[in-house]
Amino acid sequence: MLDYGMNTSINFDKTRCRKAWEWRSTGWRSKRIPFVLRSRQCMADKFIIGLDFGTETARGIRISVATGRQEASSTRPYPHGVITGALPCGHVLPQFYALQDADDYLVVAEALLKELGEGREIAGIGVDFTASSPLPCLQDGTPLSRLFPQNPHAFVKLWKHGAAQPYASNFLLDDAVVQSAFGGRVSGEWLLAKAREISAEAPDIWAQTDRFIEAGDWLVRMLTGNERRSGDFATYKAQFDWTAGYPSSLTSDIAARLADPSVVGASAGNMTADWCARTGIRGLPAVAVAAIDSHAVLPAVTDGAPNTLTCAIGTSAAYLYLTDRRKPLPPGVEGMAIDAALPDLWCYEAGQAAYGDVLAWFVKTFPLGDTMDESFDRYNAAARALSPGEHPLLALDWWSGNRVPYSDSSLSGMLLGMTLSTDGPAIYRSLVESLCFGTRAVVDMFEQGGLPVDRIIVTSGLSRRNPFVVATLADVLGRPVEVPEIENATCVGAAIHGAVAAGIVEDFRLGFRRFGASGSAVYRPSPAPERQVYDSLYSEYRRLAQDREIKAAMHTLRRLAGELPARIASQTDSPVRSAEPGR
Amino acid sequence: MLDYGMNTSINFDKTRCRKAWEWRSTGWRSKRIPFVLRSRQCMADKFIIGLDFGTETARGIRISVATGRQEASSTRPYPHGVITGALPCGHVLPQFYALQDADDYLVVAEALLKELGEGREIAGIGVDFTASSPLPCLQDGTPLSRLFPQNPHAFVKLWKHGAAQPYASNFLLDDAVVQSAFGGRVSGEWLLAKAREISAEAPDIWAQTDRFIEAGDWLVRMLTGNERRSGDFATYKAQFDWTAGYPSSLTSDIAARLADPSVVGASAGNMTADWCARTGIRGLPAVAVAAIDSHAVLPAVTDGAPNTLTCAIGTSAAYLYLTDRRKPLPPGVEGMAIDAALPDLWCYEAGQAAYGDVLAWFVKTFPLGDTMDESFDRYNAAARALSPGEHPLLALDWWSGNRVPYSDSSLSGMLLGMTLSTDGPAIYRSLVESLCFGTRAVVDMFEQGGLPVDRIIVTSGLSRRNPFVVATLADVLGRPVEVPEIENATCVGAAIHGAVAAGIVEDFRLGFRRFGASGSAVYRPSPAPERQVYDSLYSEYRRLAQDREIKAAMHTLRRLAGELPARIASQTDSPVRSAEPGR
Repeated sequence: MLDYGMNTSINFDKTRCRKAWEWRSTGWRSKRIPFVLRSRQCMADKFIIGLDFGTETARGIRISVATGRQEASSTRPYPHGVITGALPCGHVLPQFYALQDADDYLVVAEALLKELGEGREIAGIGVDFTASSPLPCLQDGTPLSRLFPQNPHAFVKLWKHGAAQPYASNFLLDDAVVQSAFGGRVSGEWLLAKAREISAEAPDIWAQTDRFIEAGDWLVRMLTGNERRSGDFATYKAQFDWTAGYPSSLTSDIAARLADPSVVGASAGNMTADWCARTGIRGLPAVAVAAIDSHAVLPAVTDGAPNTLTCAIGTSAAYLYLTDRRKPLPPGVEGMAIDAALPDLWCYEAGQAAYGDVLAWFVKTFPLGDTMDESFDRYNAAARALSPGEHPLLALDWWSGNRVPYSDSSLSGMLLGMTLSTDGPAIYRSLVESLCFGTRAVVDMFEQGGLPVDRIIVTSGLSRRNPFVVATLADVLGRPVEVPEIENATCVGAAIHGAVAAGIVEDFRLGFRRFGASGSAVYRPSPAPERQVYDSLYSEYRRLAQDREIKAAMHTLRRLAGELPARIASQTDSPVRSAEPGR
Repeated sequence: MLDYGMNTSINFDKTRCRKAWEWRSTGWRSKRIPFVLRSRQCMADKFIIGLDFGTETARGIRISVATGRQEASSTRPYPHGVITGALPCGHVLPQFYALQDADDYLVVAEALLKELGEGREIAGIGVDFTASSPLPCLQDGTPLSRLFPQNPHAFVKLWKHGAAQPYASNFLLDDAVVQSAFGGRVSGEWLLAKAREISAEAPDIWAQTDRFIEAGDWLVRMLTGNERRSGDFATYKAQFDWTAGYPSSLTSDIAARLADPSVVGASAGNMTADWCARTGIRGLPAVAVAAIDSHAVLPAVTDGAPNTLTCAIGTSAAYLYLTDRRKPLPPGVEGMAIDAALPDLWCYEAGQAAYGDVLAWFVKTFPLGDTMDESFDRYNAAARALSPGEHPLLALDWWSGNRVPYSDSSLSGMLLGMTLSTDGPAIYRSLVESLCFGTRAVVDMFEQGGLPVDRIIVTSGLSRRNPFVVATLADVLGRPVEVPEIENATCVGAAIHGAVAAGIVEDFRLGFRRFGASGSAVYRPSPAPERQVYDSLYSEYRRLAQDREIKAAMHTLRRLAGELPARIASQTDSPVRSAEPGR
């Protein structure tokens, strides 16, 4: 991997040499060894489990407390998947609906816990979940979809359910928290808009709704019997403020169905005896309050040092900036909250709607081999052989729309500069570059908004599978990029939530040291001449990204194709759009 | 072919039924039959030859005067092809050089004439040629490349030779003809800039240059022994005016090396006995003064009716508008001249730098089959199955730069609107549409400039091979498009020049009736709803084409890639660029 500009690569296997921790550049590792050795002895034969509930599947891992090592992992699809088009009963759904069946989570949770934990003493369980994916339920937790299986509003409204957008527009615009922490924008993907959607469109269902609850909080309630909501969901997805509470202008109608949350890392209680019996798990494990899936990776890859930007580049990209001091929300950044992603830290969020998705689209649409892997290998090899700027190509990476700064899912991809000499690898390379320019735009957004980025951590399977992408990112950013050496990082993060809740570690920082990434590959940027070409290309990327004519054309095309969801029409003049940096 | 909206298709074979001429919709055909029958009798056993000297190859056909039928055709490559990189002697050429060896034309002409004419009585020969492709020669026609084979300036400067552009800038800007007929622009591809290039960079060669002559005129001189230059070359490529002569501000240094031209259709004289002996041709054929290759198609596809736009869509596209009344040159249109493309008619020119080239590029870069034909068939079939606007895609068709209205070869292609649902056929379709939008922009440029387009004729192999492209063109234009039924149309046009020069027909109109296209396929536009979608897409195409930010980005990319030829840098502020319609 040296040809990618890496000059520090610590491939470290915890199982073989615990003392290798001393090699870590962060320095503090060696001081902690006595504690580690002590705790290893008393925790022998215990385990923690991390469960990651994604959009299509849930994944779980088991970690040995004694060794810190992942011992098993498993993935299960939801029996009903993402429900679009029609309900299981056949009821046809309107456009932009995306639902799930809450009972699917129970089926999958039971299977995973049994597979990972049966016959073992499990000390703690952590759960992360897509968000905002709320459901209406009775006081005892019974999901209304069990009672009203023919009513779409009784089901989980998955995060990407788009039909609630009309209920987000002009909603809570005057709320101080919405203004300061979310730039004045309430997304139609968030809980409050989805609550308003049900109360307006299905008053019968709403009347039966005792609790309106994130699916992650609901699953924790099912496992423990206790309703302990997560501050992570509440702050980011329901605009809860630790001082002011939920938005004061919220109707009592909605507020009464919510609950005050707990800081992540808190225990929601022990798993019920019933669940232990059904899964064969021994020891009544502590279950942590849930976390947002994109946030759960944090304790697996960082000790929480301030001014660190964690970039989770998978099919899409999530950017999480941690700091211990509150600063005003920079224009374009999506939201911020304290004590939500991690205790005692502010976490600022941004994202790209598509990342690996764009490359996979290209490789699948124009294959160079019989398998995706083969095509990727060939495109990467050919693209690496090119120099920056060698082909006069530039792309806008908006294949799934733009999250920041435009918050506009009807934007689309663009490729500029084709000549009769352009070939597939040149296009592939320009797509990789455009994704990296998107990252650089996010970094600039943070820094120009007063949030200095001291360190950049890139995590995900993509970042470990495709070193060409990360090497290009380091070149485009002009600074070192660290890729933690860890598998199933999000599940590990969830497990660390369980470890903290169970008291196995005192806090998330210690959780990271025990169970998190054991080393990093560092990609350093190429010499100045290459970077100067990227600087010029990036200037053109920004020029095109800021061009109103291009966005207007994209909107017209989507309208002609009948693809313009309600959320876009209503967001055309939203504050986020006009808050673009540099305009 | 009915599924493409054709409702009139006359596939007519002249050899089988001469009276089928009566079927032609133009009506006048039947009145001419007595003349035709008369002339057939007296012309029995005579032939005409048309020679088309293109960029890479020359092509010739033989037509029987008696039957009007093409009897033979042949294509020959130039022995030295297009000379770039280095001269045959090894002398390395600077960037943007594109030369040819004049002796190659003699080799190819002899071979073609022998193959097509040996042992036959040839009445007339017509020649068309790329332009402006001038060469320096002695008084007796000896090309200087024979005397100075190591000097690049002694060779033919092919039309696409780009190194003379610095000599075109700010040249003849004040000349009245350059202003009124060419929008104030002298291209570096034209003869006068190339003359200045030699006189400035190779004064020794220039001192030896008795005549500076278009290669087409030179070949005619070689065949006949007479220097009879063509008004077609002189007006369009050397800014000759039939009243004012060559630009008065031209230095005598250049003017002395030129000669007053003749109107096309004139005979330059009979082919010399020597050439007849070398080729075995009988009868001392008349050789017509040469014509520009893109103009030669005219008499093969139109009788010269005014207000007709002939669109020669091949690898690139040339647009020729004929009218019998002078109108001011519309902004963006490249040039105009009378008695040049055809006698007694004004011909206004525009073009697209790439047409079929763009589609061939896509199909070759992302094949769907083992052969180009197979891939084209599959892409066409899949693209036809889509509706207009179904995929939210739009392209700018500038893969080889833009000819009108920007006259900027450093512009490049663009594709906008990609999502994760975009596939290859959708992209192919958007490329076809973008080429048609380019045609519509040209039609609008003519009409908005006061040149009404009553009839649109589309000619070329592409237009007969790819009915999907022509059907889309009819939809995008919202009017009928005629595709003449004729093979080797440019060669047929050249042969008609020979027939006129030989007196076989009285004029080009009669030449068309005798030897030109015998029928047309008419593509009619789809019903209004589809056309309205195209109207919207075309508006967006124009929006993007007029966007300065997009063009600025393309320029930066070409600069970074080291691909910006001198011609562009110098054209940035040329009048043609600022003369864009609608700005």
